[in-house]
Amino acid sequence: MYFGSDNQTGASSKVMEMLAKANSEYTHGYGEDPWTHQAIDNLKKLFECDIDAFFVATGTAANSLALSCLVQPWEAILCHSSAHIIVDESTAPELFTGGSRMLPIVGGEGKMTPTHLRSYFKNAGADYPHNLCAKALSITQISESGLVYSDKEVGELSRIAKQHGLSVHMDGARFANAIASQACTPAEMTWKAGVDVLCLGATKCGALGLEAVIFFNKDLSRGFAQRRKRAGHLVSKGRLFGAQMVGWLKDDHWLELATHANQQASKLSESLSSINEIELAWPVRANELFVIMPTRLVAHLQSVGAEFYEWSENTLPANINLSDGQTFVRLVTSFLTQDSQCELLIKSIANYFENPSP
Amino acid sequence: MYFGSDNQTGASSKVMEMLAKANSEYTHGYGEDPWTHQAIDNLKKLFECDIDAFFVATGTAANSLALSCLVQPWEAILCHSSAHIIVDESTAPELFTGGSRMLPIVGGEGKMTPTHLRSYFKNAGADYPHNLCAKALSITQISESGLVYSDKEVGELSRIAKQHGLSVHMDGARFANAIASQACTPAEMTWKAGVDVLCLGATKCGALGLEAVIFFNKDLSRGFAQRRKRAGHLVSKGRLFGAQMVGWLKDDHWLELATHANQQASKLSESLSSINEIELAWPVRANELFVIMPTRLVAHLQSVGAEFYEWSENTLPANINLSDGQTFVRLVTSFLTQDSQCELLIKSIANYFENPSP
Amino acid sequence: MYFGSDNQTGASSKVMEMLAKANSEYTHGYGEDPWTHQAIDNLKKLFECDIDAFFVATGTAANSLALSCLVQPWEAILCHSSAHIIVDESTAPELFTGGSRMLPIVGGEGKMTPTHLRSYFKNAGADYPHNLCAKALSITQISESGLVYSDKEVGELSRIAKQHGLSVHMDGARFANAIASQACTPAEMTWKAGVDVLCLGATKCGALGLEAVIFFNKDLSRGFAQRRKRAGHLVSKGRLFGAQMVGWLKDDHWLELATHANQQASKLSESLSSINEIELAWPVRANELFVIMPTRLVAHLQSVGAEFYEWSENTLPANINLSDGQTFVRLVTSFLTQDSQCELLIKSIANYFENPSP
Amino acid sequence: MYFGSDNQTGASSKVMEMLAKANSEYTHGYGEDPWTHQAIDNLKKLFECDIDAFFVATGTAANSLALSCLVQPWEAILCHSSAHIIVDESTAPELFTGGSRMLPIVGGEGKMTPTHLRSYFKNAGADYPHNLCAKALSITQISESGLVYSDKEVGELSRIAKQHGLSVHMDGARFANAIASQACTPAEMTWKAGVDVLCLGATKCGALGLEAVIFFNKDLSRGFAQRRKRAGHLVSKGRLFGAQMVGWLKDDHWLELATHANQQASKLSESLSSINEIELAWPVRANELFVIMPTRLVAHLQSVGAEFYEWSENTLPANINLSDGQTFVRLVTSFLTQDSQCELLIKSIANYFENPSP
Repeated sequence: MYFGSDNQTGASSKVMEMLAKANSEYTHGYGEDPWTHQAIDNLKKLFECDIDAFFVATGTAANSLALSCLVQPWEAILCHSSAHIIVDESTAPELFTGGSRMLPIVGGEGKMTPTHLRSYFKNAGADYPHNLCAKALSITQISESGLVYSDKEVGELSRIAKQHGLSVHMDGARFANAIASQACTPAEMTWKAGVDVLCLGATKCGALGLEAVIFFNKDLSRGFAQRRKRAGHLVSKGRLFGAQMVGWLKDDHWLELATHANQQASKLSESLSSINEIELAWPVRANELFVIMPTRLVAHLQSVGAEFYEWSENTLPANINLSDGQTFVRLVTSFLTQDSQCELLIKSIANYFENPSP
Repeated sequence: MYFGSDNQTGASSKVMEMLAKANSEYTHGYGEDPWTHQAIDNLKKLFECDIDAFFVATGTAANSLALSCLVQPWEAILCHSSAHIIVDESTAPELFTGGSRMLPIVGGEGKMTPTHLRSYFKNAGADYPHNLCAKALSITQISESGLVYSDKEVGELSRIAKQHGLSVHMDGARFANAIASQACTPAEMTWKAGVDVLCLGATKCGALGLEAVIFFNKDLSRGFAQRRKRAGHLVSKGRLFGAQMVGWLKDDHWLELATHANQQASKLSESLSSINEIELAWPVRANELFVIMPTRLVAHLQSVGAEFYEWSENTLPANINLSDGQTFVRLVTSFLTQDSQCELLIKSIANYFENPSP
Repeated sequence: MYFGSDNQTGASSKVMEMLAKANSEYTHGYGEDPWTHQAIDNLKKLFECDIDAFFVATGTAANSLALSCLVQPWEAILCHSSAHIIVDESTAPELFTGGSRMLPIVGGEGKMTPTHLRSYFKNAGADYPHNLCAKALSITQISESGLVYSDKEVGELSRIAKQHGLSVHMDGARFANAIASQACTPAEMTWKAGVDVLCLGATKCGALGLEAVIFFNKDLSRGFAQRRKRAGHLVSKGRLFGAQMVGWLKDDHWLELATHANQQASKLSESLSSINEIELAWPVRANELFVIMPTRLVAHLQSVGAEFYEWSENTLPANINLSDGQTFVRLVTSFLTQDSQCELLIKSIANYFENPSP
Repeated sequence: MYFGSDNQTGASSKVMEMLAKANSEYTHGYGEDPWTHQAIDNLKKLFECDIDAFFVATGTAANSLALSCLVQPWEAILCHSSAHIIVDESTAPELFTGGSRMLPIVGGEGKMTPTHLRSYFKNAGADYPHNLCAKALSITQISESGLVYSDKEVGELSRIAKQHGLSVHMDGARFANAIASQACTPAEMTWKAGVDVLCLGATKCGALGLEAVIFFNKDLSRGFAQRRKRAGHLVSKGRLFGAQMVGWLKDDHWLELATHANQQASKLSESLSSINEIELAWPVRANELFVIMPTRLVAHLQSVGAEFYEWSENTLPANINLSDGQTFVRLVTSFLTQDSQCELLIKSIANYFENPSP
């Protein structure tokens, strides 16, 4: 029962097949190959506009390289206080930006809110060059609490950001899951809502190692190729990325994968909601479940082979407090999560409550 | 006729098969998977010693991350003036080391010599903290001119370096080709000859994107895991690297691939040597040929589909000068270079001389 | 009426005389002069222990260079959320540390408290290398709200820090004012209370441009000389700093200057406290007053030539809220603040209340 | 007999008087004081054009901050192979530029020549983003060998640089000595000859610690104020620099000081030239003498109290080789060098030759 992360799978078989196909031919290096070219063309079609797109292997690289194009080393980047880029990516933003500062927007129930964002600008010092000046806003889609920003919400945050002269970055590590949960197009969720640069994650949703940095605002991509090279993120056999992306995008494969993951989470959510002793911290909108459960149940599930992570209480909504004997955990479903796994998990929980450990 | 670079192929089929096999299972992320563990164990056996090993996707990342463990930001790194790390990797060393300086050792016929290395130390300023202090030596194996340092030569350079307090790094982008051309073991070529850290490149010789940073001196690996993470080079699906390495090392596959590439270069070398109008800048020791030929022949070969790069005259030995009408080019063979390709190239050259363009 | 900052004066006349005296002779450069040597000796006596000491021109340089010796680029620095180093020194810490992160400890009434510091460690993620690991604590003495940490309080914060493996830095921009307000020695306030490195500011209290970075833990000073040089902070005519420090320390001159400044603040505080319409945000412990007053009074005082800054409401204690028509300001006294200036200020305030503007 | 460096003196008495005068008043901090404003106005008059000017304490800070405005972290800076910025300033350029690379132009007899500069461009790789692209040229005036570039020579180097898209920086640590030796104006030597930014050094020629970064091309100064702040080089009591500069520029005081230093060097040169056993490596054009003399004479002079530095043989012209028993030294005169000192030196030399040590 693998609910630890959506990075515990390999690639989907269709992605893997495309990679194998691309593997067998001679071609030029450093992204000058037909798969990379095709992948970029396909992204243009998907997003219905001209773009500059670059591929790298990890989300940390994608985010930090993208952000380094938006701010100077003496400027700041705003993001939610529990965003992956500020909590889980070491000091990668500082390395790539040459020492910009990450500033957390605290508050909101699992998402950044316009109110909290506006509050930052109201209180920010403006005594330059002593104080810092924020020049980029990063929105994590889906949020660090498994919630999805609607295109309207993205638009509202972007509008505030731009009023204050900030560019807008979207960390789309689970962008596919967000689109699968919303009734809007990739274009509506991004550039039409004011996003300047999107880090589109494929790794967590069906690829083996593939993130695309997509500049809708092409002025901002100046220097990206040089930054990627000097960071060691320009691979020589570019087909590694190009082929994965071609396979991932083909016939809406990416969206099918994300839809499957979301559906499994939704089904789990339904089952869990019916259990009194278990509480969901937030409604399940995509492929992540944040669950408060008895600590002994956690131990039981682990003993029968369920994998998942305990999660930081810091991220809980203000109105929820863990009692003694409760633990906060995260469950993640993936494109590969089988019905049988979910059923086994629910059954294991039921078993526990029928016969709880002392 | 692909003689442009050994990165113009995909992975060998055996490497690809292992990757496909590893793809289909659930496992933990971030290198905590059985393939990564197996790969590191196999490297320990290959090098006959305990090591700390880390995998990344590119040679630039491997080299720069390794070097960043050897020097402080106010210290310097010595390498041959035409080394890949000083010529072809942008300012990656500066980014990863936090601003150390790359210092070129000029001179030598295609390789760094003990004489030129000693000469650096004789002339270096020693007025600290104003002057720079070199703390790392980087040796490129095979050299940037296609030559191979014997284990004895590596040992001599290392000894000089260590007398002056420097650590020794080997850029082994084509380490496999070096071993295939020498009668020594991987251990003899590295730690037994004083190498502290090796960047072992698999990409150019049969993998799709895989470099191993191998610390023989384990004291020097402190902080590497953190450096790799903050540089965005820790992939979540670690099997991507682990599986490639397991496949590459299995049953001396890596050595077979390198041996094939070297043999094709050797055969080409033999054929070319017999042609009066063509000159080899250096003897061919591995899988690269550096060739001076009539400019019109270059044009002819390109017109019939041969791929290769013109090369910098700067790197030519002092006693060789290009005449008007001559061009300096590099030909590279790979694990995939077919006899038929080589024969076609030689035949195309013969055709040209039978009927040279006016 | 200059109450804007204690950097609005020049040097004290005794400091200036020593500088003039030192100016007239030949000597060696880069700190190899008798004044620098004498200054360091005098600091050893003052702090009653062996130290490594280095002089620079600004507090930002002193703090950032000191901190860069305490943390690696992937580690973090803790400080109070309104500390000068996190609010007013741009991204200097990031530049000098190579990209470490500044982490704010929020809460406390004008000072960092053990409770809030412990709370950080309780909630910090520990999933390395993804999460950050704090390795330095910075204490601002006197605090950003004009309060003074007693040696006992410093000791308690240090003890918590060291339990978690952090080094302790003290930003002593107004260290002299702190000592002048407490019954403890410089040694008791620093190394005896667990401080590893002190940035001792002379500029704000009688020098023209002079900060000393003093390592009590001499192991931590490794590389400082090189860091200072590469940051452009090693001056060639070292007497510029050495002479100022000799003059400043001579016959407890520094303490007299600080005592004078504190006394003037204390007298102002007394006068202001007796006025109903004026409120002090915190008790006055050194040479800064944080005052809530009618906005119209602010305008009146400025119109009659009083200089001071409006201050960020963010820093106010949680139980104090500004009403409409109130403004929060900071008044600073210096070694040069005359009785007449203070009296004029108080008189101007009295005038206003006798005849308030409509 | 102080011939070690022109930084072994204090400030000239006129500079010191202006500093003392400025010291006694209240004023605003951070460069918002009348002396700083006056100093910038006076520089505009001196250079006969509008400028952006910033003051810092050291040449290393001035040079590195200026260069950081001219290049991106993946670009390169060209300078003569023995330039102070590449030999004597640690890795300051790398720190301030975020990791650009310093590239030496080798060759020339004590100065960079158009031929050697052109040669760089001819041989530079142009395979971006792999290879480096130079974007700034730095000219040291007076050169590292004590020679002076005429305005015509500066113009020719600048023209070549600009043909290749480089900005031009002048390290004017001894700019005053250069102007004192030439028949051209400061304007003719700088912006009229294509210089974009000048680091004007006052420290070596009469100030205590003062360098001005002067942007003639004001577009390039974007971000300088922020860079200076985050590098800790914005002093709070800005008068420290402003007053020195006002005093230094007043009534051509700077030029008198430089002229005196040059004259003393010229007289020494004359005396030394008449001695057979002594050779000057280059003609003396400003205030530095590079002298080849018997090693025993060096010892003798040191024994009678003469101070000077041995110099690197690397910098000698190709046609000069040191014999056994010879040593290469540098003598520097300053604004304070007395006739009596020079006479004593010459007399000591004469004494030696009358009665040489065995």
